Amino acid sequence: TIEHIFKEIFKASLELQVDDHRKALLVSRKMQAEDTIIEIKGEKIGDGNLHHIMGPCSVESYEQVSQVAKAVKQKGLKMLRGGAFKPRTSPYDFQGLGVEGLQILKQVADEQDLAVVSEIVNPAHVEKALDYVDVIQIGARNMQNFELLKAAGETDKPVLLKRGLSATISEFINAAEYIISRGNRNIILCERGIRTYEKATRNTLDISAVPILKQETHLPVMVDVTHSTGRRDILLPAAKAAVAIGADGVMAEVHPDPAVALSDAAQQMDIPTFDRFMNALDEYAPRVSMQK
Amino acid sequence: TIEHIFKEIFKASLELQVDDHRKALLVSRKMQAEDTIIEIKGEKIGDGNLHHIMGPCSVESYEQVSQVAKAVKQKGLKMLRGGAFKPRTSPYDFQGLGVEGLQILKQVADEQDLAVVSEIVNPAHVEKALDYVDVIQIGARNMQNFELLKAAGETDKPVLLKRGLSATISEFINAAEYIISRGNRNIILCERGIRTYEKATRNTLDISAVPILKQETHLPVMVDVTHSTGRRDILLPAAKAAVAIGADGVMAEVHPDPAVALSDAAQQMDIPTFDRFMNALDEYAPRVSMQK
Amino acid sequence: TIEHIFKEIFKASLELQVDDHRKALLVSRKMQAEDTIIEIKGEKIGDGNLHHIMGPCSVESYEQVSQVAKAVKQKGLKMLRGGAFKPRTSPYDFQGLGVEGLQILKQVADEQDLAVVSEIVNPAHVEKALDYVDVIQIGARNMQNFELLKAAGETDKPVLLKRGLSATISEFINAAEYIISRGNRNIILCERGIRTYEKATRNTLDISAVPILKQETHLPVMVDVTHSTGRRDILLPAAKAAVAIGADGVMAEVHPDPAVALSDAAQQMDIPTFDRFMNALDEYAPRVSMQK
Amino acid sequence: TIEHIFKEIFKASLELQVDDHRKALLVSRKMQAEDTIIEIKGEKIGDGNLHHIMGPCSVESYEQVSQVAKAVKQKGLKMLRGGAFKPRTSPYDFQGLGVEGLQILKQVADEQDLAVVSEIVNPAHVEKALDYVDVIQIGARNMQNFELLKAAGETDKPVLLKRGLSATISEFINAAEYIISRGNRNIILCERGIRTYEKATRNTLDISAVPILKQETHLPVMVDVTHSTGRRDILLPAAKAAVAIGADGVMAEVHPDPAVALSDAAQQMDIPTFDRFMNALDEYAPRVSMQK
Repeated sequence: TIEHIFKEIFKASLELQVDDHRKALLVSRKMQAEDTIIEIKGEKIGDGNLHHIMGPCSVESYEQVSQVAKAVKQKGLKMLRGGAFKPRTSPYDFQGLGVEGLQILKQVADEQDLAVVSEIVNPAHVEKALDYVDVIQIGARNMQNFELLKAAGETDKPVLLKRGLSATISEFINAAEYIISRGNRNIILCERGIRTYEKATRNTLDISAVPILKQETHLPVMVDVTHSTGRRDILLPAAKAAVAIGADGVMAEVHPDPAVALSDAAQQMDIPTFDRFMNALDEYAPRVSMQK
Repeated sequence: TIEHIFKEIFKASLELQVDDHRKALLVSRKMQAEDTIIEIKGEKIGDGNLHHIMGPCSVESYEQVSQVAKAVKQKGLKMLRGGAFKPRTSPYDFQGLGVEGLQILKQVADEQDLAVVSEIVNPAHVEKALDYVDVIQIGARNMQNFELLKAAGETDKPVLLKRGLSATISEFINAAEYIISRGNRNIILCERGIRTYEKATRNTLDISAVPILKQETHLPVMVDVTHSTGRRDILLPAAKAAVAIGADGVMAEVHPDPAVALSDAAQQMDIPTFDRFMNALDEYAPRVSMQK
Repeated sequence: TIEHIFKEIFKASLELQVDDHRKALLVSRKMQAEDTIIEIKGEKIGDGNLHHIMGPCSVESYEQVSQVAKAVKQKGLKMLRGGAFKPRTSPYDFQGLGVEGLQILKQVADEQDLAVVSEIVNPAHVEKALDYVDVIQIGARNMQNFELLKAAGETDKPVLLKRGLSATISEFINAAEYIISRGNRNIILCERGIRTYEKATRNTLDISAVPILKQETHLPVMVDVTHSTGRRDILLPAAKAAVAIGADGVMAEVHPDPAVALSDAAQQMDIPTFDRFMNALDEYAPRVSMQK
Repeated sequence: TIEHIFKEIFKASLELQVDDHRKALLVSRKMQAEDTIIEIKGEKIGDGNLHHIMGPCSVESYEQVSQVAKAVKQKGLKMLRGGAFKPRTSPYDFQGLGVEGLQILKQVADEQDLAVVSEIVNPAHVEKALDYVDVIQIGARNMQNFELLKAAGETDKPVLLKRGLSATISEFINAAEYIISRGNRNIILCERGIRTYEKATRNTLDISAVPILKQETHLPVMVDVTHSTGRRDILLPAAKAAVAIGADGVMAEVHPDPAVALSDAAQQMDIPTFDRFMNALDEYAPRVSMQK
């Protein structure tokens, strides 16, 4: 057992190095104690106030996006999401409008003075996307698409990084590190549910990840209540829980007519539901910008 | 495909029966629209106000329980938890004081006018336990110990039923049905985290289960923040999230000196931490009984 | 970092104790290098040959069990399984015939000179069951029903212990330790699939558990191909894999008319299918007793 | 309930369409009843014989690859794996030698008359890689990197597609469909373990996926025993199980000196271990090409 203790001393020195290495993560609180604040269209994500991101799952038409954008604008929100490149399980499902979708988003956002949040799926598209989007979203299926992370890290656009389908918190943090290590410090982390055996919800919202990510990193953390729960009937309580546990904002999907949506029909809110959702959420947890 | 449609008609009639069957669950909202309210030492669990359950993981001594009970009492709480029969992974771990533990709990609770919540693990112990406990706890490992559920269902004591390690919400509801089907309607459901691949927390707190259980059943729902997270550093945010999403109360572990605790040393709060926890939680989400 | 190294030295000594503790597990290879061999009706489970356990999910009638028993007997097998006490998710599902079921099993087994393997779910039933069963089965839902494990440990009947729905291998080994620590060394471990996100199979057969359990313990290990896969169409390949990886035998469900079975209708084999299954399995991996 | 039946008739017609859609999957048995056979350096993968893929986790040097290649060659194998682009959790871990790594692989493979299997991680690299690799590997983290799947689908090189960390079998099949839908029918599926709560193995080898994939698709199916188990001590039993359940071959990692490997040090076989592994596997399950 003396032998064992020497082995442990050796292991301890190894761990010290690992530890030092961990200390070195640029996204960690150890490297930056104060919160990162990311300015997008005048909103300061991470400043302690709530900033939500709303919009349709997929961009389908100018008319569709425009209706949602007006509702979003009317609620005093600044960030409009919409999918132009859609990573879909089947190659025969609607794959998004591509650049045309980005153009629609840009046009509508300009009309309503909103910021565009949209997913990019190919490293080769990142540069072109800079003309259209204010926030590059990296989706759950691409959280460990390291080539894409590096490409996003080489821009200075804010990046919304979603947690992988069954990524650990540690892998999630390391994915963010890929981005920051290339120079881009403007990263928003987004918990969106993890894959478990439970099928009552689409995924299992890992709400505890929020305070852990806030402790471990200096980055803003949002919660996507739509993809985590997959159930319209619990979006509002899930959003309240997200805010209560310390999220910097909530992400949810809104569509003028969910029943005919080209993707995620079952879980998007229609506009009246969205209005009630925002009213209830703002009443529960007022945004400072609303109070001004 | 006509054939297929006939098959579907057949399946539909089958499903109708299943559906009728589901309607028949005594714990469901379909059978009772209004919330079940369970009276324990004057607290009305399920009445819309918050009622928390606090205490040590294991009963170790009169002195230990007494110290915690005084702290619990002082915070205006009414329910004291403590394990006398401990289901432990290894047969060589501390198995609890058994009936002696129940006696200590009863004595201390009487001195402080508190209710005793304690786990029973053997159907043969249920009757004897009625002399000591105000709430029979059924632990996660026994959620599908149907013999124990039936035995608890044959008493009229309130039962705190914890969700199994990897029970689905549907299995959880059916476990409660075992109890109610024997006549005991006083059931409190307790989400305590589920087993997933993520190891940053002891279990994954499935916060979405709370609103789903509240919708599907008429029973009060609590959240055990200690076992779900296993991390003292996020107990408070987890408790806030539980309250925000609609839980009727929170359960957590408190020990005068966690470092020497015979079980769960790493996750129990000491008394000053518990005081701060309760102050912060009450400030965030005041209990009505506190305000009176 | 000197401080850290001292902490590690401290931790190392702690681990040494844990290690010593682990060494002390009575089920471990460290405590007994040679394989445990359990004699049941002349079969020597764990002797390196294959010994399978077959029979219906639930005992429904004398006639039903008798038909299956004849088929089992005819294939040269010695162990007949059948459920008399059925732990079912819903209290309204068929709960088994209870003692009457055990009596049927015993009668049929005596007629065909087979051994009875049947699940016991209540510690209070163990003693009574000794009159009827040759092997006490402890089911997945009761793997951490420690009271039941202790009761089984106090008999000298062989115990077939199934892995819990989402038990780790370490928890499984410790559950066996509960039995052996009470004096009963005749334990057969049974891998029966674990709960994961994948729904193409009823559970996920954790085939790697077999060689790990054989390495870590001296106990025989079987694989329940019915409950792990839940699919009749892959029972045979799963059984071959179980044998290939080192299992001591396979467990599967057989019913004269699966379509009308009172439980597990979708996954039991009918008798002709069972005949083909056994022929193919014996051709693939001959049992020695068959060759004699 | 008449209303319900009409709803079901409607749903049935919907499902018929979905069903037709599923029938349409080009990888499915419905579209091609006979097995796809892929010729690589004279080996006919999918022809019912065993064809294994062996080599180091990462390409580190000419010398390292050369030593392994000679051992692989000597065992009568034809396919050499080696990572040049390494998707690593941390950006500070060894990321592979890139094109230089591919050059080393190509040179060594040419010298030994072996085929090169190597992972490509960026759609933009696919074309360049065609000069060096005989089989494009798409790794677990990129199974739903649909841009990469499409790029691989536009070549005519064989593609080895690994199952995602927690992909369902259905998602895995759809990922293959992305490749085939672009025209490339030469796809080998590779089960490599899924992420579960169990930590005794690196992942949980989902052995049942093999017969299901063989039933549902006409593609060859391999099993990566290294990444699924992550344990050298059970590689051989896992490989036997893979063969027993119907896999077309096994993939494993071999390194001249695993202790100093730049990745996966703990799980690679050294060359003498590999020799014993192949001898034992060939004795257990002879390859036809070996017998000639």
